Amino acid sequence: MDISRLPQHAAVATELRRRITVGEHPVGTPLPSEAALCAQFAVARGTVRQALGALRAEGMIGGGRGRAPVVRTAAPAQPFETFLSFTRWATQTGRTPGQRTLELARRGASPEVADSLGIDAGEPVVQVVRVRSLDGQPVMVERSTFVEPVGRLLFAVDTDAGSMYEALADAGIDIHAASHTFDAVTAGEGDGALLGVGAGAPLLRERRRATTASGEVVEHGDDRYLPGAVTFTVENTRERAAATWQRRAVG
Amino acid sequence: MDISRLPQHAAVATELRRRITVGEHPVGTPLPSEAALCAQFAVARGTVRQALGALRAEGMIGGGRGRAPVVRTAAPAQPFETFLSFTRWATQTGRTPGQRTLELARRGASPEVADSLGIDAGEPVVQVVRVRSLDGQPVMVERSTFVEPVGRLLFAVDTDAGSMYEALADAGIDIHAASHTFDAVTAGEGDGALLGVGAGAPLLRERRRATTASGEVVEHGDDRYLPGAVTFTVENTRERAAATWQRRAVG
Repeated sequence: MDISRLPQHAAVATELRRRITVGEHPVGTPLPSEAALCAQFAVARGTVRQALGALRAEGMIGGGRGRAPVVRTAAPAQPFETFLSFTRWATQTGRTPGQRTLELARRGASPEVADSLGIDAGEPVVQVVRVRSLDGQPVMVERSTFVEPVGRLLFAVDTDAGSMYEALADAGIDIHAASHTFDAVTAGEGDGALLGVGAGAPLLRERRRATTASGEVVEHGDDRYLPGAVTFTVENTRERAAATWQRRAVG
Repeated sequence: MDISRLPQHAAVATELRRRITVGEHPVGTPLPSEAALCAQFAVARGTVRQALGALRAEGMIGGGRGRAPVVRTAAPAQPFETFLSFTRWATQTGRTPGQRTLELARRGASPEVADSLGIDAGEPVVQVVRVRSLDGQPVMVERSTFVEPVGRLLFAVDTDAGSMYEALADAGIDIHAASHTFDAVTAGEGDGALLGVGAGAPLLRERRRATTASGEVVEHGDDRYLPGAVTFTVENTRERAAATWQRRAVG
């Protein structure tokens, strides 16, 4: 990320995030005062306030107007889009996402997928299977199953080009909420070979259910991550039970 | 849970949670009006409002005073304590938690643990290894490492009796924030035998870092769950990037 091209408040926020992440401002300690930050960055107070507001919204700092901002966590929360979209997440964290489509198929829904999508088993769905990579290294096998009226839009999309969600958003499909369920599974022969590990390796599985604002289920996802490649972190505190979360590439 | 022993507002909230969870009020649909709920439950409007407030705080419903409450998610958020404590979580979800202590030891910190606790490798720490069960079935191997001034308190505690966090809270150790990082690992011979699966089985690992209000790290945890026994779910929406989370026993 080229900090000099960001708007001033975003550049200040980025620098503060960096300082917090590397431990220059440890968790539990106050940040310098607004006046001190204005002097350090040579910016107006409004700019500093905008930057602090961003960090507050992400849960990185607590406190409020008038009270000194205190560092709450060194892990910036990632917003809705970067939880949903591997492409957006990788790009935002400065990595290069990749995707290779193995299959784009219209078929009858299996009982498990049908149950997740809220349709009958055997009803038509569209399934996309892709190998996702970070900086050229395969790290995940992604199986996304869409209800047919949404999935059919993908036959007009280059699924090797990037985010399917962005293509769907352009087509007016607005994903509004998602749940992500984590467990561990054993790699089968196919996934093991795709990820360059043997069959039997442990994979972190994320099952995803994405819905529109009106509550319609659009997608059932099943992503399986190479061990040691990516972790998911959830943080909360006693007074803020709502959590921040972060997907992290390891190494 | 015996609903008849709860205060009225809590009983109403419990029944509404149940209805939402079983799908009687699907995600995206409005709940009945306050007046209708008062009539259904034969309670005062203040009681209904208290119940709705609880569901709103958990993220299960949206809307606000004056606007009809709309169902947002069928998964009630679990608060800080039940994310931290296996004992609290199991009890709250109506299961019977169990624990068998394999080891309670004072030893030098390994490099990984020292890094997480923010101390030097070799500094003394107290480690507790327990097998945790749900309704008598082993589901997790728990390795908790405490900084020595906190961990030493555990030598006076019966670690076979229940929550270590509650014992520590009674001793004045107030855990205020925690991060939980998920990945998948392979069971070694020891863990495989303890959990009744062979070596090589995939386990869901949760690494935990618990801190006090002043930011001191107290515990580094490493919990390894049997596949198919427990899942963790994180949910968020476009306008509420802060997430709700839920640990679920499978089956």
